[in-house]
Amino acid sequence: MNPNPKLAVAVGAALLAVTILIVPHQRPATGQTPPTSGGSVDPALIEDLVAANRILAQEGVLDAYGHVSVRHPSDPNRYLMSRSLAPILVTANDIMEYDLDSNPLDPKDRRSVLERFIHGEIYKVRKDVRAVIHSHSPSVVPFGVTQVPMRPIFHGASFLWVGVPVWDSRDAGDPAGAAMLVRNSALGKSLALTLGDKRVALMRGHGNVVVAPDVKTAVRYAINTEVNARLLAIAIGIGGPINYISAEEGAARDKAEGDYERVWELWKKKALGK
Amino acid sequence: MNPNPKLAVAVGAALLAVTILIVPHQRPATGQTPPTSGGSVDPALIEDLVAANRILAQEGVLDAYGHVSVRHPSDPNRYLMSRSLAPILVTANDIMEYDLDSNPLDPKDRRSVLERFIHGEIYKVRKDVRAVIHSHSPSVVPFGVTQVPMRPIFHGASFLWVGVPVWDSRDAGDPAGAAMLVRNSALGKSLALTLGDKRVALMRGHGNVVVAPDVKTAVRYAINTEVNARLLAIAIGIGGPINYISAEEGAARDKAEGDYERVWELWKKKALGK
Amino acid sequence: MNPNPKLAVAVGAALLAVTILIVPHQRPATGQTPPTSGGSVDPALIEDLVAANRILAQEGVLDAYGHVSVRHPSDPNRYLMSRSLAPILVTANDIMEYDLDSNPLDPKDRRSVLERFIHGEIYKVRKDVRAVIHSHSPSVVPFGVTQVPMRPIFHGASFLWVGVPVWDSRDAGDPAGAAMLVRNSALGKSLALTLGDKRVALMRGHGNVVVAPDVKTAVRYAINTEVNARLLAIAIGIGGPINYISAEEGAARDKAEGDYERVWELWKKKALGK
Amino acid sequence: MNPNPKLAVAVGAALLAVTILIVPHQRPATGQTPPTSGGSVDPALIEDLVAANRILAQEGVLDAYGHVSVRHPSDPNRYLMSRSLAPILVTANDIMEYDLDSNPLDPKDRRSVLERFIHGEIYKVRKDVRAVIHSHSPSVVPFGVTQVPMRPIFHGASFLWVGVPVWDSRDAGDPAGAAMLVRNSALGKSLALTLGDKRVALMRGHGNVVVAPDVKTAVRYAINTEVNARLLAIAIGIGGPINYISAEEGAARDKAEGDYERVWELWKKKALGK
Repeated sequence: MNPNPKLAVAVGAALLAVTILIVPHQRPATGQTPPTSGGSVDPALIEDLVAANRILAQEGVLDAYGHVSVRHPSDPNRYLMSRSLAPILVTANDIMEYDLDSNPLDPKDRRSVLERFIHGEIYKVRKDVRAVIHSHSPSVVPFGVTQVPMRPIFHGASFLWVGVPVWDSRDAGDPAGAAMLVRNSALGKSLALTLGDKRVALMRGHGNVVVAPDVKTAVRYAINTEVNARLLAIAIGIGGPINYISAEEGAARDKAEGDYERVWELWKKKALGK
Repeated sequence: MNPNPKLAVAVGAALLAVTILIVPHQRPATGQTPPTSGGSVDPALIEDLVAANRILAQEGVLDAYGHVSVRHPSDPNRYLMSRSLAPILVTANDIMEYDLDSNPLDPKDRRSVLERFIHGEIYKVRKDVRAVIHSHSPSVVPFGVTQVPMRPIFHGASFLWVGVPVWDSRDAGDPAGAAMLVRNSALGKSLALTLGDKRVALMRGHGNVVVAPDVKTAVRYAINTEVNARLLAIAIGIGGPINYISAEEGAARDKAEGDYERVWELWKKKALGK
Repeated sequence: MNPNPKLAVAVGAALLAVTILIVPHQRPATGQTPPTSGGSVDPALIEDLVAANRILAQEGVLDAYGHVSVRHPSDPNRYLMSRSLAPILVTANDIMEYDLDSNPLDPKDRRSVLERFIHGEIYKVRKDVRAVIHSHSPSVVPFGVTQVPMRPIFHGASFLWVGVPVWDSRDAGDPAGAAMLVRNSALGKSLALTLGDKRVALMRGHGNVVVAPDVKTAVRYAINTEVNARLLAIAIGIGGPINYISAEEGAARDKAEGDYERVWELWKKKALGK
Repeated sequence: MNPNPKLAVAVGAALLAVTILIVPHQRPATGQTPPTSGGSVDPALIEDLVAANRILAQEGVLDAYGHVSVRHPSDPNRYLMSRSLAPILVTANDIMEYDLDSNPLDPKDRRSVLERFIHGEIYKVRKDVRAVIHSHSPSVVPFGVTQVPMRPIFHGASFLWVGVPVWDSRDAGDPAGAAMLVRNSALGKSLALTLGDKRVALMRGHGNVVVAPDVKTAVRYAINTEVNARLLAIAIGIGGPINYISAEEGAARDKAEGDYERVWELWKKKALGK
């Protein structure tokens, strides 16, 4: 695709020795062109991606599994995500680069997560999305297997006003071998279609997927979705009609100024100790 | 308002270098008089205010947002509150001074919280109040969107016997731009009117506001309101009529001696490590 | 009061400088005999009492309030309990001695807890009891204000099979000044009568009282009562008839051998770091 | 049983000084042959067994009680399990060897757990099982005393699709002296029969038993059973028909590849700090 790649020098800080090395290559005489890197990435973005992994684990959204990706800032057909590793342990050295078919560009000995197709297929159809999170967000799971729609009751989760679809791997003709996991592009595409233009989709019996225009917003969406689910279950237990946040309110908040850097700083401090 | 301000010397301890510096000024020849400081403040009060922020975060009442203020001890038309910062991180250096229209007196480069109007408008109408807390107290949120009134079942929250009104920003004619947040004096005034002579008002889909004659009592009220909400949701789940604390019992406790310094000391030790 | 005191040397280990000084005295010629100490106490018992305070705080049964007492090993008409202090902070130096009317024998400047009458009045009528705990055990509070009796569903709480009465301070003709607190002997006596020959009594809107033949058993009872309450509330939420532990099973467990030292050691290690 | 035992040299690493020492003995002239050891064990298996104890305590499945065993790798008629000790405190030195009648081979002064018969009796009838866990898994207890069957709603617990029977010690003709505890082989056999070919059996009013082909899988099963119970109780509270994981899905997941080493590494790091 890129016939004349340049050598990109990974900018490396002590903590952020980015491992996305790009090897210049000759176009092969015949056959398929191997995918090429989107190029070097600002270490600050990698640091945010590492922080996102750790914050989401610290805040109880990610367990030993789940993953966070960002679209490559220079090449919309590439994304960056950690190798298969518990999110609380992720460092900059674990970040790998993928094409949108979720092939790793330079895997070395690093194992990719099974469900990376979630990310690639969403990036294909959602041009506005630059960050994707897949989690087993615990308070969210019950809403994927029951009949009450996930709707916002907490203003921090007002972004859910657009609706939260539920995806069931069986509706995607899940082959037996996939066993509820998004192990291939077909299942990833099905999930992306269910997500549509929304921000969050529940995955029945599994967890959710959260998308946003940037990784900090995606983290905020994921954590507030968990909080909202926890509070909504309590509200249902209290009983009576629930006074949800309305579409008008949600839309107004989407447009309003917010002081979101404040919470990112706190989460980062708690998760990274700095 | 104060035509002849004196230079107030901020009393500074190592941890408590109070940053409320007051610059003597000439009365301008014409036009509006700029607001003047209420004067220097006992570092012990600032320390209590800092402790309140950290205690409420430590005890799970405040998240990355929420804020605590105290009325200025020398000038009832001023109040003190941290700049926009996660409460667990607040130090004495972050405390700013405001007039009751919630204008900062000496902002320097410090950003004020968006919803400071909650504080200013309550101080205007509640002469008895010397401390205000706004929080997203998690167990409280469900009671703001359901139909069971918040009433006391735990004697530590008997002060709720006077009733807990629920404020909805829509009833205040919330302009779209405010988006559920108390971003201006009109919304703050509406909230203050709903609060009336009570101690706690719920804010639908948002959290609550707690007021008291001093900051230690406000912290105790806020924490026990969270505890009561948690226990009441469980009691509702158990079912049957609930044996609430009666008005007679609540009024008697209001008048009774309490050993409240004991719990403040513990909370402070846990939050500040001293 | 004591015309001829001798200096009593407190048996002191590093951590356990027991402050119960014993003053031998002459009977005064006329008038009321002041209460005399039950005598010196094995530091190991004081250490257990200190550990009990900290364990119960560590395990979430005691908050900033609540208290633990033991009957004096040498004098059944005396009991030992900490001064008014958050239980997590209690040390051997804080332990005071009381008569059964809950008068402190040597208060010095130490403040007694308001509700010490709970302890004195129970020791008066329950000769078998050598340890008393009063707590605000959080999961227990909802069972004091609802209609489902507290019964055991977890074998660790099988001792509840004898029944768990609920005491309401209003039934005791609570004077307005008492305000739900056991501030005098009359209220303590009423609570002791409601407790009867049981192990646990709930105090409506307040917490509970737990009694046992020794302090380690009392701690185990208090913690397992909290656990059972938490699990029972969940079981009620699941629905259907509940398969409680039967009287036959409870009685059998009362008589059976148990490996209780094991859990005490763990709790002590967690609470005291040793 | 083994007429010609060899001296097995315990392989000892610093942290893993395995204490299963086997003393060669003469066959007694008459009477019963004392049981002999299954021989030395790879320290890596002992380390996994120690880790399993600590992980399960760290993750809230085991409290002060509960126990984990592995079948002896060289002798299917022996199993290895800690002496009676809170699981969070277990070290390699605490591991003892038992025959399938749950007699300790070399107890020294070490006390065995009362309910070791759970392990021996299951190993007798389940040749496929190489690890057994007994716990008081808190979220599981309510499902043992109510009427909603434990079924999987979270894909991490899909292994529950085979069904989860509930064992009641009363159905086993529990003698009064046993008092709900599996204190003898008869009760252990009854429990093993109720378990049948399943992976998990609930023990009414008590906890559960979990079995697997290896100790890492058993730990994963136990933790995910706790998670599933917690989420299922919430789902029931939300209401409506529950979309459980189907038999087809569960069977497919049983056969599918999983990245299970990843979670074991994380749990071990959290529990052992390495």
